[in-house]
Amino acid sequence: MVVSFAGPFLAVDWGTTNRRVFLIEGGQVAKTERDDKGVTSVDDFAAEAVAIRARFGDLPMLLAGMVGSNIGWQVAPYVAAPAGVAELAAGLFWIDDRTAIVPGISTLVGRRPDVMRGEEVQLLGAVAAGLVPGDALLAQPGTHCKWVEMADGKVADFVTAMTGELFALLRKHGLLAAQLGGEVTLGAAFLEGVEDGKRQDLAASLFGIRAAKMLGQRDDADAASYASGLLIGTDVAARLAASKHDAVHILADPVLGGFYAAAIQAHGQSAYLIDSHAAFIAGINEIVSQ
Amino acid sequence: MVVSFAGPFLAVDWGTTNRRVFLIEGGQVAKTERDDKGVTSVDDFAAEAVAIRARFGDLPMLLAGMVGSNIGWQVAPYVAAPAGVAELAAGLFWIDDRTAIVPGISTLVGRRPDVMRGEEVQLLGAVAAGLVPGDALLAQPGTHCKWVEMADGKVADFVTAMTGELFALLRKHGLLAAQLGGEVTLGAAFLEGVEDGKRQDLAASLFGIRAAKMLGQRDDADAASYASGLLIGTDVAARLAASKHDAVHILADPVLGGFYAAAIQAHGQSAYLIDSHAAFIAGINEIVSQ
Repeated sequence: MVVSFAGPFLAVDWGTTNRRVFLIEGGQVAKTERDDKGVTSVDDFAAEAVAIRARFGDLPMLLAGMVGSNIGWQVAPYVAAPAGVAELAAGLFWIDDRTAIVPGISTLVGRRPDVMRGEEVQLLGAVAAGLVPGDALLAQPGTHCKWVEMADGKVADFVTAMTGELFALLRKHGLLAAQLGGEVTLGAAFLEGVEDGKRQDLAASLFGIRAAKMLGQRDDADAASYASGLLIGTDVAARLAASKHDAVHILADPVLGGFYAAAIQAHGQSAYLIDSHAAFIAGINEIVSQ
Repeated sequence: MVVSFAGPFLAVDWGTTNRRVFLIEGGQVAKTERDDKGVTSVDDFAAEAVAIRARFGDLPMLLAGMVGSNIGWQVAPYVAAPAGVAELAAGLFWIDDRTAIVPGISTLVGRRPDVMRGEEVQLLGAVAAGLVPGDALLAQPGTHCKWVEMADGKVADFVTAMTGELFALLRKHGLLAAQLGGEVTLGAAFLEGVEDGKRQDLAASLFGIRAAKMLGQRDDADAASYASGLLIGTDVAARLAASKHDAVHILADPVLGGFYAAAIQAHGQSAYLIDSHAAFIAGINEIVSQ
């Protein structure tokens, strides 16, 4: 690592729709701000970097997330899994001599191409901070849920499921949209969906939501919870079937993380919720200390 | 059956978006017309019936399809599977003494609620006409693909997969839409999708379409064919895993039917394409002859 990150520095978790800036001093967060200036709402990234330094200090800056994608500032090429902190540090993409982007990770294990960009900092930080073991199955639920096999403290392999996006599409468009307007709660309907998700037969189980309505079997007030349980449960069933672990460590906000935890527990496995912000800071510190 | 269908009569296959009217004389189609007056574009069904009789003859009329649903003329209650021609004939819903709606079929086998309305005439007609055996697995691909277990010439059980609707949603909305604009063709990319569909891991395999693009592994021109193969292949994999047969009889237009046939053959099973219009007429004739 270049000497420029030895003192205080700025870290930016720059995603598609949101951005969080951290001023890090002595490994601790001295100041932080979150806004909605994700990469899709930014045209001039250099000007944004100037503005960030004007607010947080004229310091070296480490960027992570979609800012390094083809819709971001510049493309930081993926490093191939297995990848740890050393590989990320070696693959930093330098915009200038004090501004760098953390690369994403790609995998091609088992003929399944997959990519991540942004999640890698949290994942490796969670291990570095001792929040999760170096050999474990991690989940990062969201629009696209990442399921990550960590081995020897590195990202060994991973798979992304479009679970959150499918739920959003079904709530907004198509046959089921009118039924899925209700709030998702962690109750009997959700767990019934998780149970039916064990079939791993999503396209058919989804139609069952319509059929249950036609046959008077389920109130539409419960349909969204059932659908969420079905989608998350199908995702969990597929991942646990391929897992050699008996627990999953979840990096997510408590609500969504709680839904995944309930589905994992319904499969008889343990689920641990991990603080993803702490993991991100630990990951950034680990990269700059290489 | 009442005597009113003993002579010439009218049969109407009245779906959500389209309608087909047949004048049937001596069991044969004497005249037919197809238009886009599906139930969603009709307000006054009684007036439509008068108009049909004005064009085709003042005859008894048998209606099938969504015309008997809660968005149709009047609700013809489902009859429960197992159901054959006799059960449909006994369950006819009479609008007046010479106008009847064929009921749909419902199932609750194995805690899986499912419904059909309109497909039942084709299914039972295919058996009645000797186009398929009385014990067989039938598929009716479409927006919602019906998979039907026929036993002793009756609809014994069935499951509906939202395969076509999911494909349409993904082509129009969300992350993959920009990649899926291409034409679907029955080539290597489609068959690769069918192969990956054997994993029955749809939400994750779909994200692979994005990842393959990011890693330069597949041209977007092939992405739609791959996605179609993946969706149809996942559907086929789930159904064949639960099937006791070694063949599937497909009621569909030749293009979509051909896609399903290729996926079924990729699983080492036989696929037979059946003329769905001939099956419908045979089914209607069988119902009126009860």
